Amino acid sequence: MKVAIVGATGETGNSIVEGLLAATDTKFKQDITALIRPSSLKKPEVSDLEKKGVKIAAADLRGPEDELTKQLTGIDVVISTILSSELRDEIPLANAAKKAGVKRFVPCFFGPVMPGRGMVWFRDDKENTLNHVQTLYLPYTVIDVGWWYQISLPRVPSGRLDSIMRLTDNCIVGDGNKVCGRTDLRDIGNYVARIIADPRTLNQKVFAYTDLRTHNEVYDLIEKLSGEKIERQYVRSNTNPPPLKKKTKIKRPGSSNETLAMFQLLSAEDIEAEIAKVKGDEANINKLSVLQYQKSWDLRGDNCPDYARYLGYQIAKDLYPDFTGISFEDYCKEALEGKSKPLYEKKRREAIAAMQQKAAEGQT
Amino acid sequence: MKVAIVGATGETGNSIVEGLLAATDTKFKQDITALIRPSSLKKPEVSDLEKKGVKIAAADLRGPEDELTKQLTGIDVVISTILSSELRDEIPLANAAKKAGVKRFVPCFFGPVMPGRGMVWFRDDKENTLNHVQTLYLPYTVIDVGWWYQISLPRVPSGRLDSIMRLTDNCIVGDGNKVCGRTDLRDIGNYVARIIADPRTLNQKVFAYTDLRTHNEVYDLIEKLSGEKIERQYVRSNTNPPPLKKKTKIKRPGSSNETLAMFQLLSAEDIEAEIAKVKGDEANINKLSVLQYQKSWDLRGDNCPDYARYLGYQIAKDLYPDFTGISFEDYCKEALEGKSKPLYEKKRREAIAAMQQKAAEGQT
Repeated sequence: MKVAIVGATGETGNSIVEGLLAATDTKFKQDITALIRPSSLKKPEVSDLEKKGVKIAAADLRGPEDELTKQLTGIDVVISTILSSELRDEIPLANAAKKAGVKRFVPCFFGPVMPGRGMVWFRDDKENTLNHVQTLYLPYTVIDVGWWYQISLPRVPSGRLDSIMRLTDNCIVGDGNKVCGRTDLRDIGNYVARIIADPRTLNQKVFAYTDLRTHNEVYDLIEKLSGEKIERQYVRSNTNPPPLKKKTKIKRPGSSNETLAMFQLLSAEDIEAEIAKVKGDEANINKLSVLQYQKSWDLRGDNCPDYARYLGYQIAKDLYPDFTGISFEDYCKEALEGKSKPLYEKKRREAIAAMQQKAAEGQT
Repeated sequence: MKVAIVGATGETGNSIVEGLLAATDTKFKQDITALIRPSSLKKPEVSDLEKKGVKIAAADLRGPEDELTKQLTGIDVVISTILSSELRDEIPLANAAKKAGVKRFVPCFFGPVMPGRGMVWFRDDKENTLNHVQTLYLPYTVIDVGWWYQISLPRVPSGRLDSIMRLTDNCIVGDGNKVCGRTDLRDIGNYVARIIADPRTLNQKVFAYTDLRTHNEVYDLIEKLSGEKIERQYVRSNTNPPPLKKKTKIKRPGSSNETLAMFQLLSAEDIEAEIAKVKGDEANINKLSVLQYQKSWDLRGDNCPDYARYLGYQIAKDLYPDFTGISFEDYCKEALEGKSKPLYEKKRREAIAAMQQKAAEGQT
């Protein structure tokens, strides 16, 4: 089976490459092609891929469709893990895949389960791709993986989890009792390797998650493993006493990821108003995503197998009962021991530098 | 099981009422409620329903949602067969159904199978309702029934099929060899009665069709049964010889349904251009629908079980192998004998009167 991947140097794409390379049967090993935009060919991440045995092909998704079709000819499976801002480039990719006779197209989903449209802004673009794929009558599989372990941990007073990326500091929207499906980023590829070789998943949606627990249970586990008490900031409905003081800034002593801590204490009702406020504002696009995600999995509880089944998803645990994946507890232990690899390392360093620059300018 | 129907006086709604009343087990018999807009309560169609044992409830879908919720409390299944221009009224209906604890919501689909969005203009509204229903986590079933027998027959030289409604006269877009799923309008209710009582169809899409044949095979059958030769007007691609003369008006001797014969001879490529031209033009909304339908089932071949399965539909023939439905051949015989009941009788009379009025004005 020949697989081509768009976005192979990203976090999800890299996990998929590793998963295909590690697959116990060897059918993928010599046949992974990373489609790389011409301007990125000389990046170190690309030569890293090449060293692992991945073929590199220069491909411009915004270039001539016939060119793309030629490149996909002979490929069995196309997997896209494109940036959320570039999801529309999947349209020509799907057109080319159809013309090239690709046998399975995996559009970029790889996120939490939620209603198709109107929940998180870029999810609508993902549904547009899926609708386009279905209009082409192109065989496909949608894979959602829930929330990554790697962005699930709260901060602890000692600061030893401060290098872990998180989107919402220690805020819990709602009562913290909605279950949420989570997966270790490193397991995404292991799931994908099984799913794309499985005829049962053709023209289906699959929800591949490893761990299912509530926000409160995540905190309980970290308290147990760390021996530290975590302050939980509940964002409750205005009508539930005690009302929270709005816009309280959360203390972030020594935190290295302030840029990602955009969430302020709002009431549950205010989240809808806040979403309306930041919608359409390019500068607040990340804040919008965080608020919309919180609404979906913390307030509504969308990202769980029951709702996924209701939406027509197959569940990877049902399909592959022998595959257990990395346990959430093991990941937490690793993180508390400082052994967890930070995400988006380059981007984080750039963001922190920009923030420090800004702070320095403010002081002069 | 208690069932409430919106649109019970329409063609589809009436078929559903009849199907539920005729269901061999009696569980539906006393419990059908027609939700009728207050201004229509005194129409003869409504008292006809009442005579059959259907309960009548005045309901305003654009009124207070709480009022609607009260009316739906205790109802098990809500079925909507609303006009395509009023599909947005299903949003408050779904909200009320969720609050009332309705166990199954059947939004108004009841059409041919096609891609979710971007094919026929009002189908997008149907998908919007479905997305809303799924966001509410409201149990649902989507039912598509293909193309009605009652609008499938071509004209024959003797004129004895002229009273049958058709949308496209004797034009065939493409080569006429795409199979198309068809159902006798009178069987829709028989399918619905089974589907809404079936736990396997909960939160699923079902394609309920009886007959599967190509446009050419429909003509072949009518020629065989009538002994008349039918002129077939193929609308082929411009690149296929011989090119057709564009905008040729088709002769309609003595036809009583001129208002519905809006289709002109265009090349297959021109259909896309024509669609673009009439899009957004309220006055041409019916023409737009016809062109889009033709593109979907005659050119693309969407309305068939293979494509439906690809889109995730269950097929009624698989679910209910014992149910055969009225055969297409039997319907054709009935129609050739002049025994087929015309559709939309009142609307047709109004349209013909308006047309005659216009023609008379043109002559003065």
